[in-house]
Amino acid sequence: MSELLRIDFTYADAARSASLAAAAEAARDTLVGRKGPGADFLGWLDLPAQNTAAQLNVIEAAARQIRSAEALVVVGIGGSYLGARAVIETLSPPFAAGFPIYYAGHQMDARYHAALLEHLAGKRYAVNVISKSGTTTEPGVAFRLLWKELSARYDAAALKQLVYATTDAKKGSLRSLANRAGLETFVIPDDVGGRFSVFSPVGLLPIAAAGVDIRALVEGAQQMAAYLEGPGKTFDKNPALQYAAFRNAQYRNGKKIEILASYQAGLAYFHEWWKQLYGESEGKNGKGIFPASVSLSTDLHSMGQWMQDGERIIFETVLDVENVPGPTLFSQDNDDDGLNYLAGKTLNAVNRTALEATLAAHRDGGVEAARILIPDLSPTSLGALIYMFEYACGVSAYMLGVNPFDQPGVEAYKNNMFKMLGKVGH
Amino acid sequence: MSELLRIDFTYADAARSASLAAAAEAARDTLVGRKGPGADFLGWLDLPAQNTAAQLNVIEAAARQIRSAEALVVVGIGGSYLGARAVIETLSPPFAAGFPIYYAGHQMDARYHAALLEHLAGKRYAVNVISKSGTTTEPGVAFRLLWKELSARYDAAALKQLVYATTDAKKGSLRSLANRAGLETFVIPDDVGGRFSVFSPVGLLPIAAAGVDIRALVEGAQQMAAYLEGPGKTFDKNPALQYAAFRNAQYRNGKKIEILASYQAGLAYFHEWWKQLYGESEGKNGKGIFPASVSLSTDLHSMGQWMQDGERIIFETVLDVENVPGPTLFSQDNDDDGLNYLAGKTLNAVNRTALEATLAAHRDGGVEAARILIPDLSPTSLGALIYMFEYACGVSAYMLGVNPFDQPGVEAYKNNMFKMLGKVGH
Repeated sequence: MSELLRIDFTYADAARSASLAAAAEAARDTLVGRKGPGADFLGWLDLPAQNTAAQLNVIEAAARQIRSAEALVVVGIGGSYLGARAVIETLSPPFAAGFPIYYAGHQMDARYHAALLEHLAGKRYAVNVISKSGTTTEPGVAFRLLWKELSARYDAAALKQLVYATTDAKKGSLRSLANRAGLETFVIPDDVGGRFSVFSPVGLLPIAAAGVDIRALVEGAQQMAAYLEGPGKTFDKNPALQYAAFRNAQYRNGKKIEILASYQAGLAYFHEWWKQLYGESEGKNGKGIFPASVSLSTDLHSMGQWMQDGERIIFETVLDVENVPGPTLFSQDNDDDGLNYLAGKTLNAVNRTALEATLAAHRDGGVEAARILIPDLSPTSLGALIYMFEYACGVSAYMLGVNPFDQPGVEAYKNNMFKMLGKVGH
Repeated sequence: MSELLRIDFTYADAARSASLAAAAEAARDTLVGRKGPGADFLGWLDLPAQNTAAQLNVIEAAARQIRSAEALVVVGIGGSYLGARAVIETLSPPFAAGFPIYYAGHQMDARYHAALLEHLAGKRYAVNVISKSGTTTEPGVAFRLLWKELSARYDAAALKQLVYATTDAKKGSLRSLANRAGLETFVIPDDVGGRFSVFSPVGLLPIAAAGVDIRALVEGAQQMAAYLEGPGKTFDKNPALQYAAFRNAQYRNGKKIEILASYQAGLAYFHEWWKQLYGESEGKNGKGIFPASVSLSTDLHSMGQWMQDGERIIFETVLDVENVPGPTLFSQDNDDDGLNYLAGKTLNAVNRTALEATLAAHRDGGVEAARILIPDLSPTSLGALIYMFEYACGVSAYMLGVNPFDQPGVEAYKNNMFKMLGKVGH
């Protein structure tokens, strides 16, 4: 398989997945042949390759400008912020005093926003507001608060150095505001939905501002795209098709919940990105696997009991990072805690042993798993992993028989809310 | 109902829950009569009332000593750390530069622990290591790393000011080490399981060290305990019985997943505490509701589609915080974003409207919900909420027909791991 990613079915019934090989290849052909429902939203397939050096230069220049401020506030919700946050939190060194990135408008918690405004008061901070329309309530409200605060302190010329809008190329209220204020803008392509937009400026600008190497991230995605359509074209060499077949086979076998598990603390927001990708793409028409996640081994001591012995309606997808630098364990004079036997092993080796031990225990408990191995937590590896999941998602949703690229259900609460808030026309 | 907590079934079929009223009361009688399986582990029922002023004084004195260091590292996993973390993260003001609390040994991520050690290097930090036995691998390994680092810099007398052990009263390796080093220790009661231990020193010492008013927290739990056994004795006035009946009725009706939803960012770790409480208590013998959570309105833009239109195997429990201070919205000259109609409303009012709108949308989509209202995010309200959930959990598990207080399934991965790591005797 690809050097950047392997998938292992040692802890699953491989024959069950393989029985869907032809169905997976057919769904793939529908996807890349742009013959299925939602084919107007397939721009993401080519996004990695379309990121020319010139375009990345523009993003990096804006990112440098942003980093000359004291902090960046990313204003967006759902697909307009989750991809960036997933990459930033996965790749940023824990506890390091890096360039501060804050998030706003991804919810409407009053205490959170009051505290954020207080924390930012007097600071010279930048804002990247990300919204296709500019009228979504959560980011709209947060951007109003921040824009008012900044406008009171900076003139129009200074604001242009601080505020960046990622929005529609031509229409919408955020486009209007940006044009009127002369802000630098980045375009959300018409044919890319939010949850597939990481490799567009939606993801790349905040990621670059956080100091992550976006060229390496995009390069990883490009390599994965080339692999899936080249050497990995057939089912037996294609991790995306195998993953799509695995999860559909589990679902057809009555498994209603997929638990994404990882053993690296930094991947917590990657889980959230993955949940949106699969949940929003597949959860429709009364169908779809429920996407859940656990951070291990933490959650073996909370959800572990349920996973081992609860209702047998789950399967697992486990992320295994092969190389993670860290401490080596040692002997000590007093072996009260009985841990001297670990001397000489690295902490990552012990962690990965816990991973294998858990896979075996869960298999014995009736829970099958796919293991996805990536070499490290580098931008290249992460780019490849993200693209593989996106591609597999399109394939999987077509196998399920739904349009992967719409989200009609997200309007229901908004319509109720507008009515209850007294918005004209509702 | 109690002034500290109300439960509302406007968005559920109340008759379905009420049909289990007698079963809930019977399960409650089993619980408080100490007649069910696991009755040796009911010490938590009386923990709030048993916290005398003298005991709280001792905890607060240690907490003051800890706060004279530059930071605290809490070393524990599962029930030995989740309750404290849930309370601390819920009640600590966001973005405030408070006393730093770090966590270690709640997983074995090598990068995380390497970065934490580097971050702490040279600092005068305290450690609270929390483990009944002292031999659990994750906290054991982390404590070795920290103890070695501190021991190289401080003599025995100084270490006594920095390291605090919460462990068994008499036996175990951590008790041995603490006695030998002359550390101040706190006792994990024999009749209280980890997930029910928030109101013991397991939770209270780190919570006090974080600067939270533990007297108010315990007072809230005491008030709830008194209410549930006093004015709220009968089903129609008892939120714990109603909640237990609601979720069991949903489960018997084919709903396999309970989604705990909140609209306050700070409650994210409270969700994790709740998942352990219910998942570990009920997920056994091939039974049990799968506990999941969403942070809203964030996740309406990720999991919202699935919740509205996916498989109808879910129900919701929604936490509604009535009073949350924060900004008030306003008009601006340019109404491009169409948000002028919100002028004069507080952000919390808009957030709570989103909550109600979502409840209505989900009900229309076939998802029933219980709404739990608490007056604010104060220690008193949170203490009452925690106790109500603990009490309801005992009732609910007895209604389900399982022992709420064991966790046999968590041994499976450990046994595999010891074998694979070559531990003698495995």
